[in-house]
Amino acid sequence: MIPIILAGGSGTRFWPLSRWDSPKQLLSLLGEDERSMIQVTVDRLEPLLSEGQTVQILCREDLVPPTREVLRRPDEVSFVVEPAKRNTAPAVALGTARAEAHSGDEVVGFFPADHFVGDEVRFQECLRFATRRAEAGAILTVGIPPTRPETGYGYIECGDELAGDRALQSRAVRAFVEKPDKARALAYLQAGNFLWNGGIFLFRPSTLWREIQRQRPALWEHVAKIRDALAGGATTDSPEVVRAFSQMESISIDYAVMEGAEHVEVIPATFRWSDVGHWGALDEVLDCDDDGNVVHARARLRDVKRCILYSRGTGRAVAAIGLEDMVVVDTPDALLVLPKSRAQEVRELVAGLEDDLV
Amino acid sequence: MIPIILAGGSGTRFWPLSRWDSPKQLLSLLGEDERSMIQVTVDRLEPLLSEGQTVQILCREDLVPPTREVLRRPDEVSFVVEPAKRNTAPAVALGTARAEAHSGDEVVGFFPADHFVGDEVRFQECLRFATRRAEAGAILTVGIPPTRPETGYGYIECGDELAGDRALQSRAVRAFVEKPDKARALAYLQAGNFLWNGGIFLFRPSTLWREIQRQRPALWEHVAKIRDALAGGATTDSPEVVRAFSQMESISIDYAVMEGAEHVEVIPATFRWSDVGHWGALDEVLDCDDDGNVVHARARLRDVKRCILYSRGTGRAVAAIGLEDMVVVDTPDALLVLPKSRAQEVRELVAGLEDDLV
Repeated sequence: MIPIILAGGSGTRFWPLSRWDSPKQLLSLLGEDERSMIQVTVDRLEPLLSEGQTVQILCREDLVPPTREVLRRPDEVSFVVEPAKRNTAPAVALGTARAEAHSGDEVVGFFPADHFVGDEVRFQECLRFATRRAEAGAILTVGIPPTRPETGYGYIECGDELAGDRALQSRAVRAFVEKPDKARALAYLQAGNFLWNGGIFLFRPSTLWREIQRQRPALWEHVAKIRDALAGGATTDSPEVVRAFSQMESISIDYAVMEGAEHVEVIPATFRWSDVGHWGALDEVLDCDDDGNVVHARARLRDVKRCILYSRGTGRAVAAIGLEDMVVVDTPDALLVLPKSRAQEVRELVAGLEDDLV
Repeated sequence: MIPIILAGGSGTRFWPLSRWDSPKQLLSLLGEDERSMIQVTVDRLEPLLSEGQTVQILCREDLVPPTREVLRRPDEVSFVVEPAKRNTAPAVALGTARAEAHSGDEVVGFFPADHFVGDEVRFQECLRFATRRAEAGAILTVGIPPTRPETGYGYIECGDELAGDRALQSRAVRAFVEKPDKARALAYLQAGNFLWNGGIFLFRPSTLWREIQRQRPALWEHVAKIRDALAGGATTDSPEVVRAFSQMESISIDYAVMEGAEHVEVIPATFRWSDVGHWGALDEVLDCDDDGNVVHARARLRDVKRCILYSRGTGRAVAAIGLEDMVVVDTPDALLVLPKSRAQEVRELVAGLEDDLV
């Protein structure tokens, strides 16, 4: 399997720590030996590499230097530069076409750059199983068993069991479901056959091409040009590739291909997972003190409970009295205070900020 | 009248802005032309000076240089250095003895260095009236008509009207009352004849000496030595003055003298007043935005109401979402976050901090 990391994050939800030129995947948020999240993702995928392959990172051109900087062995990964800002469908097509040009019809796997995985060995077992199923011609995804009625994720409705055993199984995908409202999320949680969409996809290039041809002929026109160019020795920054890429519709891979695809299977994850989607989620993945606080600061607390206190690059003391379920983030040029329950709104706050702060 | 400013504040309640070497009275908290609170206090008292007098500032030795630094015309005030850390009774005795050595039995007035006064002309009218009453032999104080059942202040129970008219009157003091509990504070508020103790006292030196002799003979022993030394040409740092001062009991002027004194009168204040006792009180004296926030920062707010957002010396952006009735203070080496309702606890938090932060 050829792992391709989608590292296109724009870095707004962990503002002020994450910025335009330093999105979440470049941070070492989780204190894992100070490795950046993308380094942790690379380390998790390397054991799955086919002989002679490298992990691929697909990102904006301006993110290549800062990403190399946070990687411990940057020369052991390959960068694929997105020639323009598009959604995930064009990016996945480009990554797949480039992998095909180098390695033929070997299975490719797409992975988010900035998720947390609790048990890497189980993750790898799960992905090896997924790879075998993808080699047989299916599109494979990994679904996360939901633990709460989350309205912030897409869901996958499972059908029949297709392969595997109780420990690790592949099930037919009945439908991809958009982010639900609270009532629907609760119904999904209770139904038992709904999983969170973890944003992982595996397939043979030939499988993807067949689906794009069938479902998205307008997209296929440009994809075919990119395939031809890369097969003829062009690189991802060759004019014909850039031109074809730029002409593709900005559309997500879920919507463009997955929702309507035949033979999609999902493997329920057997590992602990979090997308660490915002500051309020940090206590899902980091150790808490006896009062439930995540403290990454020179903190002086008095009656503070279930808070996130995060300081980076300032060395300042963070003192607090009488806080519950709050987030305080301290960086050299900006400070953020908000209740955990409103951490999703950071993105909207950042949208209104001046350039020097984003 | 000879005004003497008691500037012994230790600077814990406005931490992290106030510090040991920069207590509240040295800050320009209130944005009044960037004047420090002590400068504002000096400016308010200067129109009350007798011919040829200067405003006196009574403080710790180490505070003289930083206080001079925040005064616009430091050479136009006189500093009286407290030879040791004592409470207010020794300080008031020293200040009075020194004034007497220079100016005989002229009325002296003691004033806090860090209170807010809303109308200076009315303040001055009030103090001129108090001076005339003190010249007649009474101890005069100014009481603040209470606006809430505050448990953080001492109260003054008023008796008969003694002088003045409806606009400005002097009343007999029936009793000084220690900080009450909530029920008692509510009863005082409803009773109508209780005032907050504003910490202002005026008297002739001879009046104070008579009361100390009568009520505190042990204290008088040391006071008499200081008087003699100063009358003989000694200064406040002369060994005999330092020795006598150091031997005095650490006791407040309220407890040592006022509570048991004869002929104490109180003038109900006709001006707006606040002791600006903690961060949560800042909205009593500073302008608020439409959401009731006091903003002294490069703030980026989303759904923030009735908060104090104060940044000094960092130039950092202070971003907040979904806060109500909170205080956020941002300084170069420390950050403080707490609900307004717990602002009184800053003092206790600071008591537990390391030396480099206080």
